[in-house]
This record gives sequence, C-alpha cells and structure tokens, in this order.
Amino acid sequence: MSLTMDRRELLKTVSMGAATAFFSGSGEGTVRAEQAAPFKTKMPLNPLPKALVFDTFGSVVDWRGSIIEEGAAWGKAKGLKIDWARFADRWRSGYGPAMDKVRRGELPWTKLDDLHRMLLEDLLKEFEIQRLTEEEKDHWNRVWHRLKPWPDSVPGLSRLKKNYVIAPLSNGNFALLTNMAKHAGLPWDAILSAELARHYKPDRETYLMAAELLGIQPKETMMVAAHVGDLQSARACGLRTGFIYRPLEHGLGGKADKANPGDFDVVARDIFDLASQLGT
Amino acid sequence: MSLTMDRRELLKTVSMGAATAFFSGSGEGTVRAEQAAPFKTKMPLNPLPKALVFDTFGSVVDWRGSIIEEGAAWGKAKGLKIDWARFADRWRSGYGPAMDKVRRGELPWTKLDDLHRMLLEDLLKEFEIQRLTEEEKDHWNRVWHRLKPWPDSVPGLSRLKKNYVIAPLSNGNFALLTNMAKHAGLPWDAILSAELARHYKPDRETYLMAAELLGIQPKETMMVAAHVGDLQSARACGLRTGFIYRPLEHGLGGKADKANPGDFDVVARDIFDLASQLGT
Repeated sequence: MSLTMDRRELLKTVSMGAATAFFSGSGEGTVRAEQAAPFKTKMPLNPLPKALVFDTFGSVVDWRGSIIEEGAAWGKAKGLKIDWARFADRWRSGYGPAMDKVRRGELPWTKLDDLHRMLLEDLLKEFEIQRLTEEEKDHWNRVWHRLKPWPDSVPGLSRLKKNYVIAPLSNGNFALLTNMAKHAGLPWDAILSAELARHYKPDRETYLMAAELLGIQPKETMMVAAHVGDLQSARACGLRTGFIYRPLEHGLGGKADKANPGDFDVVARDIFDLASQLGT
Repeated sequence: MSLTMDRRELLKTVSMGAATAFFSGSGEGTVRAEQAAPFKTKMPLNPLPKALVFDTFGSVVDWRGSIIEEGAAWGKAKGLKIDWARFADRWRSGYGPAMDKVRRGELPWTKLDDLHRMLLEDLLKEFEIQRLTEEEKDHWNRVWHRLKPWPDSVPGLSRLKKNYVIAPLSNGNFALLTNMAKHAGLPWDAILSAELARHYKPDRETYLMAAELLGIQPKETMMVAAHVGDLQSARACGLRTGFIYRPLEHGLGGKADKANPGDFDVVARDIFDLASQLGT
C-alpha cells in the first residue's frame, strides 16, 4: 500500500516535471515541482475573469507560416525565387520600429494597414520584386487580413466563448481584425483594436480601453498572449494574465517566449489548456 | 394563350399590389404597381455594399416586448401591479431627450447604460417601485443587454454574414451591444457603437466612424433600420440604405415606420427579405 502510494507520488512528480520542462525549456534553471501544481491541478482562478482579450499575431494566428505559404504560391505563379521566410521575418521586424515612430509622435496616428504598406514598399525594393500593380500591392498588404489560425484557436475559442466574453486586443487595425476573424472563423464576441484607443500596445491606454469598453474592471479582464512583454504590460495596468505557448511562431529553429507556471495567472500549453484551466 | 398571359399579368399585379400595400399602408396615397417592382424582381444592387450595419433597438431586437416580459415575471414574483407596457414606453421615450442633452453639451459624453440608469431612477419614482437594492436596480438597467431578437433576426443575419460584414451601429454602448449579441446569439462580425465616435446617431460622426473603422467607403456601407429618420441621416452621409419593416415595434396598436419600394436602396419585409434582395 505504501509502495503503491509512493509510486503514484513518483509518477505524479515525474509527470509534473515533464510538463514544467515543456514550458521552462532545458538549462533555464531548476524548476521546483510545486511550480507545476496550478497547471496540473487545474485550480480555477478565484474570482474568474469576465472577459478574455487576446493578442493575435503569433498568439492566435500564424503570421509567419501564412505569409510563407501565400508567398510561395504567388512566387511560383510569377516565376520568382524569394526566401519567403526571410521576407516574412523582415516584414514583421519592421513592425515594432514603425509603431515606435507613432508612439514618439514622429508619425501621427497611423493604422497598422498603413504601416504595413510603408514597410511593404521597402521590402519590395529589398527583394527586388518589381512592376507590381497597385491592386497587387494592396492584395499583398492584406495578407495580414488572411492569416491562418493555429489548429487549437477556433475550437479553443469556441469553448471559451461559452463562459466568457472573448475579443482580440491587438495592434492590428479594426478592419484587419474584423476581416481576419471572418476569414479564419474566429468566433469573437467583439473586436478590440489599438485603433480604438489610438495607442499601440504596450501603451497603457490600449489595455485600459479594453476593460472600459467591455464595461468591466481591469482585474475582471484577462490578457492572453504568447508574448511575455505584452502580459507584463497588461499586468501593470491591473489586468489578469494568461500565457499560451507558441513554440513555432518564429519557425522550427526560432526562439519563442516561454513561461513557468506561476509567472502569470494562467500558464497554458495552448488555448485548449487555457480553456480547461478556466473551467470550460 | 393570350387569356393565360392576361391572367398571369393580373395575378402578378394583384400580388405586387398586395405586397406594396403591406408597406405603404392604407389611406396613405395611391401606390403605383411599378413601385413594387424592385422588391418583387429582387434586382440586385449594383455595386453591392461590402458591409451592412444595423440599428438594433426595434430593428433587430424587440425592446418593448422584452421589457414587458421581464417586468411581468418580476412584478409577479414581487407582487407588484404595474402597467409594464407603459413602463417600457416611458423608459424608451426618455431616451431621445437624454441623448439630446449630450448632443447639446448639457451633459458630457455619457454612455447609454448611464442614461438608461438616470431614466430608471425617475421611472421607479413614477411607478412607485420602492426599496430596490443597488443590485436589483443594476439588474433592471441591464434588461437592455438582454433584449430578445425578432424571429427572423438570428437566421437572417446568419444568411447575410456569409456574403457581407455585418455589425450593429447603435446608440447602445459597446458593452451593452456585446452582451446583447451574446445573450441573443446575434452573429455580428464586429460591434460598432456610438460610444466609439462619442456621438449619438443621427450625428454624422457615428455613421462615418462605421465606414472608417471597417476600412471602406461610406457608399460601400449599408445602414439597415426600421426607422426612416436613421436611414435618411445615413444617406446624407453617403451610406446606402436598407429599410426593414417592424410593424410590432410599438405593440399591436402602435405606429411603426413604413416605406415604399424605391424610398431606400432596399425596402424589405424583414431580414430574410433583405438577405434575398441582397443575393444571399
């Protein structure tokens, strides 16, 4: 009997350790078994949030894989040889600096579609893609409206929607997020965009706007993201936080943010796991 | 053969006449058979709009019937005898004047939940409903978040959603509309509220905000409502217009807005008919 118990305990510890390693990665410090507890025992938060707001690029949709896929198909039709992974990464890497220009006032408020277009013009030169019509450029720019969801996103959000108000809270402009939801089948209750606050995340105004428009307190709102910085900024505004792990955001060899159980209110493998931990 | 044709023509004319009378009412002038044509032949608009934005109170949901139903059940439980139809009508009749105070600057921007609450306080006095707790008052005020859809609203919107971006464009605040959609199962792609423009309809800013956020031109946006004034204001801002007939908005004996075919880009019996006329 006592042997059986010990064996069970041992299995439990091994199981928790394995799960924890999944999040913390190897060589990033020793993980204590207790840290895994909230995530294994599915202890519900008390009180539960009323609404969940989601980062989208990378957290809900696979921007990199989607751009590579469209690029490869388009390049083949056009007879162009382009490193589409590099094209996608270069486009995305221009995003932060472009938003910073708005944040510092070097640009007036400019929605993400327009920042993407400015970056696209530079990219087309860099990759020597010539003679595109205005229609083709516009179509390319709207690839961000057509990003594909991670496999768990639509079914996971559908589960969460039964018990929670769910919305994106993204730097994507309102139309981009509306079109993305329609294209990908994301079952949002409402669209929340940085455009509504005219401030890009991580500015406080964006997080606080979400709670204000939903008619709830920041502490009743949970920000969900695969990015530690986004969650830390949301927490500083009084929001609850939920981390979801997206190991493939930057490709197979890429570096994705990780979190240990306890780092945020919920640390989850994916949206299914988030839904389970939130009791849905 | 010529007799058959004549009979067919006759039946067609009678059919059109009957349909037209449904919209124009009796005693409101002679209706020419040609006026019914756009509505019988289902001639599609050219070009079709890209998005449809809907007035909600009265147009998509039955505010009056819903308040009466909740009131009757609550009053029975409380042992109160109240004329709930009058209660509903009095609440609604305070809505326009309260918004006008915001429009004229006598009140700063105040969201509809808060205007409804100010009106409710007066109503409780008028109807001598006493000793409500804060929780009960808040629950009552949120009856506007729980309004029930007309029978065609959910299936009709679901049809339209396949081909168009659909959203409310209502004076209800963002949280009210989000909760209403969740409660009633309204399948909106996004929530558009006067709160996002901080201007109540029929101010121009509200209609123009809808097109701007959806990333389209006003002429690519169709305002849909059961209220002629709302549609006239939307048209003045360059939006397309769609009328839907809601004969029971103000109850069996009440007066509902009517329109003749040709008065607006689409004049429809209900959302099913609107969907058919828009090719879905």
